[in-house]
Amino acid sequence: MKKKAKTIGLLSGGLDSTTAIGLAIEKGHEVIGLSFNYGQRHKRELDAAKQMANHFKLEEHHIIDINLSKWGGSSLTDFNQSIPNQGVIQGVIPNTYVPGRNTVFIAIGLSLAEAKNATHLILGINAMDYSGYPDCRPDYIEAYQTLSNLSSKAGREGQGIKLWAPLIHWEKIKIVQEAIRLDIPIDLTWSCYQGGQKECGICDSCRIRHTALRQAGYSNIPHTP
Amino acid sequence: MKKKAKTIGLLSGGLDSTTAIGLAIEKGHEVIGLSFNYGQRHKRELDAAKQMANHFKLEEHHIIDINLSKWGGSSLTDFNQSIPNQGVIQGVIPNTYVPGRNTVFIAIGLSLAEAKNATHLILGINAMDYSGYPDCRPDYIEAYQTLSNLSSKAGREGQGIKLWAPLIHWEKIKIVQEAIRLDIPIDLTWSCYQGGQKECGICDSCRIRHTALRQAGYSNIPHTP
Repeated sequence: MKKKAKTIGLLSGGLDSTTAIGLAIEKGHEVIGLSFNYGQRHKRELDAAKQMANHFKLEEHHIIDINLSKWGGSSLTDFNQSIPNQGVIQGVIPNTYVPGRNTVFIAIGLSLAEAKNATHLILGINAMDYSGYPDCRPDYIEAYQTLSNLSSKAGREGQGIKLWAPLIHWEKIKIVQEAIRLDIPIDLTWSCYQGGQKECGICDSCRIRHTALRQAGYSNIPHTP
Repeated sequence: MKKKAKTIGLLSGGLDSTTAIGLAIEKGHEVIGLSFNYGQRHKRELDAAKQMANHFKLEEHHIIDINLSKWGGSSLTDFNQSIPNQGVIQGVIPNTYVPGRNTVFIAIGLSLAEAKNATHLILGINAMDYSGYPDCRPDYIEAYQTLSNLSSKAGREGQGIKLWAPLIHWEKIKIVQEAIRLDIPIDLTWSCYQGGQKECGICDSCRIRHTALRQAGYSNIPHTP
């Protein structure tokens, strides 16, 4: 029997990363989950990440502490800043952007991948909804691939870790449709920037999610603001 | 009065990073120190980092926990592996190489730099002594610079954070000579891979350090194995 490809899956507990991991598993990869306790506002998304790791029956799921709230710089890590709820403004980076967050998370993912001899690192990064975030764009991922190839002996010999961002060009509705097709328990994923018992329904992340869920005909939407 | 350039300085407590920070301060930069409790064998080097932060009178010195020992992959983070002491072998990456360590540390440094509006990130990385390490080479730093420019709004507008590795092409003896010129308390820096009360004197790091100290005529060498 052919040995399964091993893939590190960054798992936030949200819809995008969960769908990405679902795709990797569908393609026959063995996935090791990686989540971060990075000083975010709430642990609600980490609970969702654990539930998704259980859903996928991942044999390994690492939760790493890395306190990016120590220097704030974002409404997600600095409780003195408010989460915006006036909708996405084209060309403006919202204060939910966390400086360097994706760069840090991917770096830690590459460390884990190298230690575990994984061939891929799968990311739920999506450029369509977050065009304001510089670190969700295709050229950013390409530059990180170049760095990854140079950062390890295997990479320099052409056997580097592949950064795999299958959702990068997808509209949110396509992500929802794929999540439904993959039987992902969407109502257990968590995308809301706030950490209440229920989704707030008004932050940018909720708005984008709910619009797409409605468009895809998903019936179990907790809020329709 | 012209405002000082603000620089994040990765500070391991060793000779190289301390000398690099000394150079930045000599050039008039305000330096914010950044060290890592990454699951290394010993905290001895963190004590040295704190002493160096005091020596330079840094106003800020952040020590960040990031447990890379969770997945091992190196003799520095996995206590079941032995530190080698047979000398550097050309073309062979020693087991002291920590998967992804520099990529993770620089990523966290860039996050801090962006949050603090720093213009530079100074690194003690040196390609001469560690030619076996893929992530200490100039092309690796160049690729990271490209990534850094794409990862932030400021970088995309040409105001990105400059990765500054002044020691990258230096022989170790030049680093020692510069450390002496900059009045760095060399005997308080810590480069040994082991964490005893005194340097072991036989690990690769001690060997390289002591050879250079002898060549530079430094008188206070604890061991001459």
